Amino acid sequence: MQKGMRKYEEFLNRGRENFLKKVEDAYEEFKETKTIRFPAWQYGEPKGKIIKLEVEDTPKFGQNAFIELDSARTAFISIDMQTDFAGEKGYVDVMGYDLAATSAPIKPIKNVLDTIRGTDIKVVHTREGHLPDLSDAPFNKVLRSKIIGHGVGIGETPEGGIGKLLTRGEPNWDIVDELYPIEGEYIVDKEGKGAFTMSNIHLLLKNLGVTHLVISGITTDVCVHTIMREANDYGYWCILLKDCTGATDEENYKSAIKSIKMQGGVFGNVSDSERFIKAVKEAGLK
Amino acid sequence: MQKGMRKYEEFLNRGRENFLKKVEDAYEEFKETKTIRFPAWQYGEPKGKIIKLEVEDTPKFGQNAFIELDSARTAFISIDMQTDFAGEKGYVDVMGYDLAATSAPIKPIKNVLDTIRGTDIKVVHTREGHLPDLSDAPFNKVLRSKIIGHGVGIGETPEGGIGKLLTRGEPNWDIVDELYPIEGEYIVDKEGKGAFTMSNIHLLLKNLGVTHLVISGITTDVCVHTIMREANDYGYWCILLKDCTGATDEENYKSAIKSIKMQGGVFGNVSDSERFIKAVKEAGLK
Amino acid sequence: MQKGMRKYEEFLNRGRENFLKKVEDAYEEFKETKTIRFPAWQYGEPKGKIIKLEVEDTPKFGQNAFIELDSARTAFISIDMQTDFAGEKGYVDVMGYDLAATSAPIKPIKNVLDTIRGTDIKVVHTREGHLPDLSDAPFNKVLRSKIIGHGVGIGETPEGGIGKLLTRGEPNWDIVDELYPIEGEYIVDKEGKGAFTMSNIHLLLKNLGVTHLVISGITTDVCVHTIMREANDYGYWCILLKDCTGATDEENYKSAIKSIKMQGGVFGNVSDSERFIKAVKEAGLK
Amino acid sequence: MQKGMRKYEEFLNRGRENFLKKVEDAYEEFKETKTIRFPAWQYGEPKGKIIKLEVEDTPKFGQNAFIELDSARTAFISIDMQTDFAGEKGYVDVMGYDLAATSAPIKPIKNVLDTIRGTDIKVVHTREGHLPDLSDAPFNKVLRSKIIGHGVGIGETPEGGIGKLLTRGEPNWDIVDELYPIEGEYIVDKEGKGAFTMSNIHLLLKNLGVTHLVISGITTDVCVHTIMREANDYGYWCILLKDCTGATDEENYKSAIKSIKMQGGVFGNVSDSERFIKAVKEAGLK
Repeated sequence: MQKGMRKYEEFLNRGRENFLKKVEDAYEEFKETKTIRFPAWQYGEPKGKIIKLEVEDTPKFGQNAFIELDSARTAFISIDMQTDFAGEKGYVDVMGYDLAATSAPIKPIKNVLDTIRGTDIKVVHTREGHLPDLSDAPFNKVLRSKIIGHGVGIGETPEGGIGKLLTRGEPNWDIVDELYPIEGEYIVDKEGKGAFTMSNIHLLLKNLGVTHLVISGITTDVCVHTIMREANDYGYWCILLKDCTGATDEENYKSAIKSIKMQGGVFGNVSDSERFIKAVKEAGLK
Repeated sequence: MQKGMRKYEEFLNRGRENFLKKVEDAYEEFKETKTIRFPAWQYGEPKGKIIKLEVEDTPKFGQNAFIELDSARTAFISIDMQTDFAGEKGYVDVMGYDLAATSAPIKPIKNVLDTIRGTDIKVVHTREGHLPDLSDAPFNKVLRSKIIGHGVGIGETPEGGIGKLLTRGEPNWDIVDELYPIEGEYIVDKEGKGAFTMSNIHLLLKNLGVTHLVISGITTDVCVHTIMREANDYGYWCILLKDCTGATDEENYKSAIKSIKMQGGVFGNVSDSERFIKAVKEAGLK
Repeated sequence: MQKGMRKYEEFLNRGRENFLKKVEDAYEEFKETKTIRFPAWQYGEPKGKIIKLEVEDTPKFGQNAFIELDSARTAFISIDMQTDFAGEKGYVDVMGYDLAATSAPIKPIKNVLDTIRGTDIKVVHTREGHLPDLSDAPFNKVLRSKIIGHGVGIGETPEGGIGKLLTRGEPNWDIVDELYPIEGEYIVDKEGKGAFTMSNIHLLLKNLGVTHLVISGITTDVCVHTIMREANDYGYWCILLKDCTGATDEENYKSAIKSIKMQGGVFGNVSDSERFIKAVKEAGLK
Repeated sequence: MQKGMRKYEEFLNRGRENFLKKVEDAYEEFKETKTIRFPAWQYGEPKGKIIKLEVEDTPKFGQNAFIELDSARTAFISIDMQTDFAGEKGYVDVMGYDLAATSAPIKPIKNVLDTIRGTDIKVVHTREGHLPDLSDAPFNKVLRSKIIGHGVGIGETPEGGIGKLLTRGEPNWDIVDELYPIEGEYIVDKEGKGAFTMSNIHLLLKNLGVTHLVISGITTDVCVHTIMREANDYGYWCILLKDCTGATDEENYKSAIKSIKMQGGVFGNVSDSERFIKAVKEAGLK
């Protein structure tokens, strides 16, 4: 084994050098152009058009930069824009939170959809919800929802409500009318705050050949952040559009945005709908 | 199938009723006692002693409650207390952040360890780090670290540094001396911010029969929150000890704590080292 | 780090010694009793009754042994007993395989269900199937099914068929009438041959506190084996009831059974419905 | 929701039609050319050279076909070619199996490596093994190994042995000298029979942009098949080189090969080293 270990050390060093060479090249390019180029060496030549998107506070607060996306390898993901989170008598409403914050993203998300529908950018919607027998709902999650809801939690219908909270197949569980998926778009159903632990999102993104995720939806500090963290850990490039997301608490919203930008972009980057729409148009997609 | 679907509906309804009955029982008990009891119906009778831990702002801000843990099914997890995050010339230091915030948890974590070592509470440490050839490091993660580090990122040794940043086997990657694991404790090595996507933590917690996680470590809004979110999605009961954790930014720290408490405990509960130590002693474990 | 590594070595050695002590105890007991006892040290005292089940060719071919299960921590899992795999005009039928082999397990599975329904043994059914837009179906899987089906594959309705092959919501996709779930039983929908990669089975088994799986269903060498392998890798104790399973090819069936028994039980153990029913009755459950 | 559901049905149907159009095109091409083309519509234009590999018994037994691979998106994976499985005093040897079968693949794997080293085909080696404290070893796995090993199992050193069985860092755990990785190759360490449940293989293959896996290693019916099943469920294209793999039992070996070919290639395809080497050379890679 001593011999093996020596050989092992050597090939590890060479592996690191090869990898760092690619990083060095991209870094030099960034210094000159303030742009993170689409890494064709890794994914292949672009299949669609290159979108050059401005992202804020990158690499440091107060500085802006650009990131390149291949339109045909980009998915715009709209997270949990369901009545349960943004509509009356839904889950968030029953818990007593103001709906203004969680419904605010509807309009900017709609603007983005109006721009990208018909292009080769993929559109993915997610829905959080449990099977009607709650067999996929952790006991603690349901109990906590019952306590905060004064006796009415997940799987139950609140007074004056339109269906069982966070339960698949109920009207309140479905996506709000304004953003309802159209032909050629995808839905990922998930039972958790995140999506990569137990849903088929792996397979969907792999099938579609997606490398970059442009993220929107609610709520910023819960489901949106969890999915962004998971995707980032799996190596996806993530960019959150900050006006296309909202939280039940203003401070948590602001901090969730800020947290992404720490450490040069610890969970990815932040942009907004206006910049994204502009970049899509400039790419000649629309 | 129509017949099948009818039968399906029926058994789903019965399943939900059975499950909600358990929730109802726990809810009634909570109303009376402000305590979330250890669910023996789910996990079996306690194997160890019952620890009754006070948690704050539960179910609402301004209200406190208690949660019961079975000592033999509890793991105290210390996340990423590595020189790279809390020591000089480590990763966080090189990026220019103040080490005071990330090293502050060392003392309270040590206090907890002093109390629980020798009891049947399990102790798990995690380390973030990459293989020396960086084969498990996403390209975007390494590139961003190089940009924010002005040319010195993951896998490279900073000027005056003690080893390659965030690289397994380097001195800066290891756990700080004050909190170094002792006999009978466990280490989980992970390459991401989270741990449940690609590490053996599943197997470890399952082997140990763990149902409740008492969480500490750094940084609060990055690795600590990611692991807490994943564990929560998998149904683990999570309690963060707020003085046993720290972040590179004060606002993000505060908001990360607050975010956990939203929606009646959307990611679990929050307590502190003093309360936990008190509860452990009151349980007669020490 | 040298100091750290020394300490690390020490605690690893102690950890191994502690663990091997438990293994040693169980081994000594096995030598004397030919029984693998329910490991209460790991999971806690039994919540239900102890079932002592005879398993064949354990540890070696020609030798039998016993394994203990806690009824309340046991799930009987019936894999993919769908018309698509065991009925006319389903997926397997269209590909030209003989249905006798895949429908043979219906009767013995029914016998087991008749015995365990009403006890505290959990019953889980799985269904393989894809979303109607095939967004969770790998392209290569669908293409191969089309080639072998002479132009009619997954997502399409064969001539004289009763619905789109392997597609959720279609009559052929549902569980056969004889084994249809009843109240209090669970269904796991999955898109792959296995279940642990992308379904909610993790959460379900965790919610139910399951440690042991008694496995049945079709087809032996494909979905049954894949799920058994995954569950085994996650540390579940698996026992396949060999008459409650069938394959499209007799040799593959036999070899799939044999393969489990290699290396002292590389994927778990093998028993049959008669022995299991006997053990359940002897445990006083029925 | 009624309205929502109607819209949902419509977009699902359109999604399916779009997807099946791609399948139809590939099917028509296959009928004419007996070749499964590299799906550039999905992954992008080839980054390397197209390798046209003959695979056997496809789509039916007695018929051969071809599959196209992009060299720069192909990984050759050598599974568990460790002394523990193919060498003296290793795990398999201690259990009493004949080493001839498991060491037979060394030569053909070496031939493949000699051909592809220096090309843009990636090389990945895996190692099965546990942490020295066995914290990632399921109790049942270790117990069974001890029983079949007459008191000497995983984590222990057999009489006359060279190290602790299946334990990371031991000489017997490492890859055999003949196939030891060289610079620029990758190693995935895993604790299970499979690799996709808990290792970093996801990240590695994603980093490398791999879509097709050419598989070799030991043992055929255990680790090789488990990894192939997992990869297939995640949508990777898998081709096993049948002479580059071996099992502890001849029948199980044969059946494992046969099982792959059922249903038109239920787990992928089967070829051999001679055909693969020929195809690589014909592609002009060497």
